[in-house]
Amino acid sequence: MARTVVGFMSIVRNEEFTGVRSENPLRDPADLRLPRVAGPSGVVVFGVTGDLSRKKVLPAVYDLANRGLLPPGFSLVGFARREWTDEEFAAMVRESVQRHARTPLREAVWQQLARGFRFVQGAFDDDEAFERLAATLGELDRLRAVGGNFAFYLAVPPKSFPQVVQQLRKHGLADTRGGGWRRAVIEKPFGHDLGSARELNRLVRDVFRDDEIFRIDHYLGKETVQNIMAVRFSNVLFEPVWNRSYVDQVQITMAEDIGVGGRAGYYDGVGAARDVLQNHLLQLLALTAMEEPASFGADALEAEKLKVLQAVSLPRDLAAHTVLGQYDRGWQGGRPVPGYREEPGVDPGSRTDTYAAVRLEISNRRWAGVPFYLRTGKRLARRVTEIATVFQPAPYLPFAPTATRSLGQNALIMRVQPDEGVTVRFGSKVPGSAMQIRDVTMDFSYGQSFTESSPEAYERLLLDVLRGDPPLFPREREVESSWAILDPIEDHWQRRAAPAPYPAGGWGPREADEMLARDGRSWRQP
Amino acid sequence: MARTVVGFMSIVRNEEFTGVRSENPLRDPADLRLPRVAGPSGVVVFGVTGDLSRKKVLPAVYDLANRGLLPPGFSLVGFARREWTDEEFAAMVRESVQRHARTPLREAVWQQLARGFRFVQGAFDDDEAFERLAATLGELDRLRAVGGNFAFYLAVPPKSFPQVVQQLRKHGLADTRGGGWRRAVIEKPFGHDLGSARELNRLVRDVFRDDEIFRIDHYLGKETVQNIMAVRFSNVLFEPVWNRSYVDQVQITMAEDIGVGGRAGYYDGVGAARDVLQNHLLQLLALTAMEEPASFGADALEAEKLKVLQAVSLPRDLAAHTVLGQYDRGWQGGRPVPGYREEPGVDPGSRTDTYAAVRLEISNRRWAGVPFYLRTGKRLARRVTEIATVFQPAPYLPFAPTATRSLGQNALIMRVQPDEGVTVRFGSKVPGSAMQIRDVTMDFSYGQSFTESSPEAYERLLLDVLRGDPPLFPREREVESSWAILDPIEDHWQRRAAPAPYPAGGWGPREADEMLARDGRSWRQP
Repeated sequence: MARTVVGFMSIVRNEEFTGVRSENPLRDPADLRLPRVAGPSGVVVFGVTGDLSRKKVLPAVYDLANRGLLPPGFSLVGFARREWTDEEFAAMVRESVQRHARTPLREAVWQQLARGFRFVQGAFDDDEAFERLAATLGELDRLRAVGGNFAFYLAVPPKSFPQVVQQLRKHGLADTRGGGWRRAVIEKPFGHDLGSARELNRLVRDVFRDDEIFRIDHYLGKETVQNIMAVRFSNVLFEPVWNRSYVDQVQITMAEDIGVGGRAGYYDGVGAARDVLQNHLLQLLALTAMEEPASFGADALEAEKLKVLQAVSLPRDLAAHTVLGQYDRGWQGGRPVPGYREEPGVDPGSRTDTYAAVRLEISNRRWAGVPFYLRTGKRLARRVTEIATVFQPAPYLPFAPTATRSLGQNALIMRVQPDEGVTVRFGSKVPGSAMQIRDVTMDFSYGQSFTESSPEAYERLLLDVLRGDPPLFPREREVESSWAILDPIEDHWQRRAAPAPYPAGGWGPREADEMLARDGRSWRQP
Repeated sequence: MARTVVGFMSIVRNEEFTGVRSENPLRDPADLRLPRVAGPSGVVVFGVTGDLSRKKVLPAVYDLANRGLLPPGFSLVGFARREWTDEEFAAMVRESVQRHARTPLREAVWQQLARGFRFVQGAFDDDEAFERLAATLGELDRLRAVGGNFAFYLAVPPKSFPQVVQQLRKHGLADTRGGGWRRAVIEKPFGHDLGSARELNRLVRDVFRDDEIFRIDHYLGKETVQNIMAVRFSNVLFEPVWNRSYVDQVQITMAEDIGVGGRAGYYDGVGAARDVLQNHLLQLLALTAMEEPASFGADALEAEKLKVLQAVSLPRDLAAHTVLGQYDRGWQGGRPVPGYREEPGVDPGSRTDTYAAVRLEISNRRWAGVPFYLRTGKRLARRVTEIATVFQPAPYLPFAPTATRSLGQNALIMRVQPDEGVTVRFGSKVPGSAMQIRDVTMDFSYGQSFTESSPEAYERLLLDVLRGDPPLFPREREVESSWAILDPIEDHWQRRAAPAPYPAGGWGPREADEMLARDGRSWRQP
């Protein structure tokens, strides 16, 4: 077959993404499941005492070690203000692993891993601390054969980004002339709007090359999100209907049931649109709508996602087709919960949005005229992330009209979380002697179909950083294109009085329902 | 919406099929599940002591009564040689209901039903018996207000068809001038080849009008078979790929695990191709391949099925693309089982086929070049009936070639029995850090999706007979077109030595595997 003939070329092109490391493309398929192992390397975590580090980054380090994916000399350096010894640092890591890691704590793995732990005490403006950090990396290089390969994980508030990055340059920590690689891992938010994103990108690019910068959008590390590409491009069944001729609308939802919780300090003044819609939802939109990439390499993927993001059209009437909301008091899980403005740490007069919904279109041949409805919110009825592609009704139904009353529109739902999988909704005959049609669903469930349990997004992404494998990290231009979509929406709402209030525990503000009702549609209740 | 506007007209056109009896098409959808009830009527069963009557027809009568679908005066007349009283006949019916009915025996229902039971003793050449039958029907008309509406169920060997039909005419039993309706229910085989089928049709048409003749193909009474039409024509998702541009092949399988059992007397000399392929499999092919009918009325349905059957092309090389087989000794369910020629009642030199496989094509714009592989057999590995539409591979896979080793072709499988439902096979990402694709399935299961349990095919079909509802009964021209397909295959094998032997408990003769291998394909193992 043609595919076998061109096999070797393709394998080389895709090597870093597929993890196929053999020279022989025809070896046993079972080998393909060999995990991709990181080479000699270490990670420096700034803001190592923060929530993100303790809940996600440090557990992911352990899980990777436990899966045998880290090199024997792997090193982990924590950088923070606390006056900790290496041992106290290790104890904190151990506690966070015990509480948050996906895989169980195995003493032998732990002992091996912990030998590479170091702690450097200091503030971000403390030059001496960065000198001590440089010395620590040098020591680890010598003792543990790290090869000069270090990733700097900036788990720090946005306002500290510039300082940390500049300190890295000032103290030669981004310098690879001594050998090895240096990489910067940046967590969202990548700016506050297009202007600040550009400024941030410029700043980081002063210190790191483009291919040394890894921006974390943890949604891209999720199995179910990568599966969007697998399902679209490995099958023949879905592509023929994946366009404006058959699709009526696409609904992308990321709903949280929790409130702002302890994140008020970060969240207030940022809001749902900047926190979720600008990054996660627009990335999901791009993966859902993009053309087939030439490969799954970073350049090819970026090219396709960028084409979609740059083709996004904002609604002409922003008042009618965008909604920002803020949760009010309500009930959740049978308990009364406070409104957003009553949450600790939130300005009682805050105009921050905790809900955002928008109708976008994509101005290209495939999607022109098909609305993409995006919504995200806190304190909604349940926690769910999904992409629902809703198809047009059949052009004609050769049934009695009353026979299809319980028939809705066909839909293909990518269930991102929880209950990961794919659902197809379609019409089927109701048992009985009349020809009655009713919607039924066909389900594929990750949990039931695979014995392999899915790695956490942070495991996947951290491993990709260490392997220098960039396709799952949004690039500068994607980030800027996304802000270019959001800026006019934010500007519009800035000029209005306030986000629309909605009771906690429901599905968001009435205005969001009206937004779809004007189009003769309604939101799915997933 | 446009559908509502034309609602009333459509409802009238489809009334008998949908069971919508109200004048108001906008009433509550819940009403639509009102069962369709038979009007005043009775059934005369010839061959009432046979297997078919006892296992299928009589239990279906009771199940319909139990579901409240028979009129209060419903009458059942048994006709056979036995010297039975009405009471002895009723006892036999009761026993067969207890053993074979789908729903539990309720005494009140039984008592009410049994009051309409009569037995007429006689042979088919016994004129007096037919006079007694006529008198019995007259008496039932007077006593039970049957309105002269009688169906004659010919559960008799094919050789007796002509005689019974002629007796019905001779004794005025097919005569409706006295009021009411008379219908003939005929069981397969509808002939032995095209010539005998034409002869049989001519004979029955001499006595009954076309719309008075109901030919039973019990597969058409199955929910899952009717669901082929519901799924194809109520959805928008499947139709775009339901053609030669996307479909690689269709495999229609009806496999039995049992042997010829007690049916040798009928089966030997008939064989699998005549017993199953000519009727059930070609009907499934027609429903799978046909264009959307103008309605689900009998004429419109027949028109579309006929177009398909008449467009069927036989393979030019019958030796290469048809296989008849006969089971040999083997193992099934851990037990040794005899070969076909060793079965009681089978000629030890029999050349009867117990397995038939054929490659057909459909010469029209939608299907040209797509092979339809049909197979049926006894003593195969398991009991299963399914229609698998296998799609072409994706035209290009932007993955590493090794990543798609475990990816097969997409398929949509209509599971007719057992485990009724629909399955879609497609490629999905294997959890883990490489982009590996593997086939997974998405399932819809009747049992899990509907609380309504499915009526037996015979319940549905018998009710349709009593209601004069003909769409699920193959008509004269369909039967003759099917024989026209089979005749050249039978002729070809008649000139050969013998069907290919295959061991019981497997998937048929090696020759059937080779038949697909020559096309670069293989049979599904359902």
